[in-house]
Amino acid sequence: MENNRTEISTLGEFGLIDHLTKNFETQNVSTILSVGDDAAVIDHFGKQTVITTDLLVEGIHFDLMYAPLKHLGYKSVVVNVSDIYAMNATPTQITMSIAFSNRFSVEALDEFYEGVYAACEKYGVDLVGGDTSSSQKGFIISVTAIGEVAPDKFVKRSTAQKGDLICVSGDLGGAFLGLTLMEREKKIYIENPKIQPDLEGEDYIVGRLLKPEARKDIIEFFEKNDIVPTSMMDISDGLSSEVLHISKQSNLGCKIYEDKLPIHNDARQAAFKFGLDPTVCALNGGEDYELIFTLKQEDHDKIVLNEEISLVGYMTDAEDGYKFISKGGNTFDITAQGWNAFNK
Amino acid sequence: MENNRTEISTLGEFGLIDHLTKNFETQNVSTILSVGDDAAVIDHFGKQTVITTDLLVEGIHFDLMYAPLKHLGYKSVVVNVSDIYAMNATPTQITMSIAFSNRFSVEALDEFYEGVYAACEKYGVDLVGGDTSSSQKGFIISVTAIGEVAPDKFVKRSTAQKGDLICVSGDLGGAFLGLTLMEREKKIYIENPKIQPDLEGEDYIVGRLLKPEARKDIIEFFEKNDIVPTSMMDISDGLSSEVLHISKQSNLGCKIYEDKLPIHNDARQAAFKFGLDPTVCALNGGEDYELIFTLKQEDHDKIVLNEEISLVGYMTDAEDGYKFISKGGNTFDITAQGWNAFNK
Repeated sequence: MENNRTEISTLGEFGLIDHLTKNFETQNVSTILSVGDDAAVIDHFGKQTVITTDLLVEGIHFDLMYAPLKHLGYKSVVVNVSDIYAMNATPTQITMSIAFSNRFSVEALDEFYEGVYAACEKYGVDLVGGDTSSSQKGFIISVTAIGEVAPDKFVKRSTAQKGDLICVSGDLGGAFLGLTLMEREKKIYIENPKIQPDLEGEDYIVGRLLKPEARKDIIEFFEKNDIVPTSMMDISDGLSSEVLHISKQSNLGCKIYEDKLPIHNDARQAAFKFGLDPTVCALNGGEDYELIFTLKQEDHDKIVLNEEISLVGYMTDAEDGYKFISKGGNTFDITAQGWNAFNK
Repeated sequence: MENNRTEISTLGEFGLIDHLTKNFETQNVSTILSVGDDAAVIDHFGKQTVITTDLLVEGIHFDLMYAPLKHLGYKSVVVNVSDIYAMNATPTQITMSIAFSNRFSVEALDEFYEGVYAACEKYGVDLVGGDTSSSQKGFIISVTAIGEVAPDKFVKRSTAQKGDLICVSGDLGGAFLGLTLMEREKKIYIENPKIQPDLEGEDYIVGRLLKPEARKDIIEFFEKNDIVPTSMMDISDGLSSEVLHISKQSNLGCKIYEDKLPIHNDARQAAFKFGLDPTVCALNGGEDYELIFTLKQEDHDKIVLNEEISLVGYMTDAEDGYKFISKGGNTFDITAQGWNAFNK
């Protein structure tokens, strides 16, 4: 890219915003006014508005040594719309603010926004505002997502009931194994830059890390099949961490079964290769952006044929604790081993 | 503070959010669900939702050598609600995300949030979400504000009409002079840390920089007096820069008169002391967070008695250009000299 570098300073802040947003058309009729004014106007007659926000910081949440900017832009949107789906809502708009040091060129930001717009198109959301700024160091991304939901259809974390089924979408542990692989390859590369990264056959776990998807399909499945989960959240910090959130906020206990955990075969193979236990990866690996939700037992038949949904356990009384039942039938306490930005 | 320092790592991320939000009660009945879930739920039946976002980066937008954290928290909210008022809307909710290096203690963040909550109370907004993260360097603040407005009452930048009166609220240039003072004192302090800062008699300009207010009162005045400006924005980059935005986006020219510019006497005195032209400070100094708006001529009598509103010029044909008329009667072209984060 060195032959084709436009300095951001040649555009100025407003020029840059124009440049980055000029090809973007809004998709929702509710988006009355978008980028280009002090604020955006959104119409929501008869609907409830859902809003969520996430900050992604270079060196903390991502590593530009192996995260392509386009994928990073895509993922920045996905992690936010995932939070909207986790409310049983439909994302409609986002705002995106970024700060970056002068090591970034316009072409680099274009790449980032290409990913942003691809995700916006995929999930049907409008980019309605944002801010750009310099940073002293590193790339910083702040996204706020807005969504809508029919009145009183939103689903919280704190409303699971005793006996409810605990379900998860997709499969778990893949993103963590992708991260493990990339960190290993990065270390090898730093030690010897001539060695090419060995990612053969690892597409699945690398994709889970670098280009996750939000579970729009699951929310649409609920709608179509008249399902309203009793509680729900997305799995960003790991299953253990999230099932504890739901349990504690609902004042209940839980029981999770090892033999029910959905683990993709590629993730299982990668775990063995790295000398890791696939179950531990599925329980504690973050960033899969799957959904965990609880259902009334009578809804069991509605989900049983959906291969994208696994029944992994059920809610118990608070005094029964947070339990994990191994394949051998042993019982362990579930503890939150999830990724924690402050202990790094 | 060294005797009373709690490490953030002792709380963990969720503990920190709990800690920072535990004393905050929501104010709007529309705030159905706030901090503590994946997203917040807001009810907006029959109203239009307005959303805006701003990123503030240490070393770019603020300097912790002279910006107290409490004031910084306050200002972070103010700059966002100011954008909502600039739409002729009423702010109702904000989300606040921050990233910070390990040089910050819990007490430091408490101070910051004290300012955030003070501003939320003053402007009647609810803090409904956010994210906290580590940063590799410096303090980063991202705020998104949501507001509501009766359908079709929102005011854009692009809708001024030829002949409309150009008005500004409050006075201009004070924040820039406060910044000039603080930068001067910082330089003296770095050269000789034993010299105490000389801020005597400079409360006004220092306050304009460190603890600006948004013009809620002006929007309420409009409502009470049946005024809908034909265009409006807030003055964050400087009057020159903003009047050019309105003119260009409305396909018009403008004429601004030097003898009409509202300049506080303390700002004028400070300008003389620093050897600066008060008019240049009023035209090009940013961060006053006043409002610039245009009115139909027939609304003139509605604003003439409001001492917080100054009539500074009027809109002309595009071919008449962007003109500034000095006290001596000379005509100059207005150029945007506003603060630009990328040319620093």
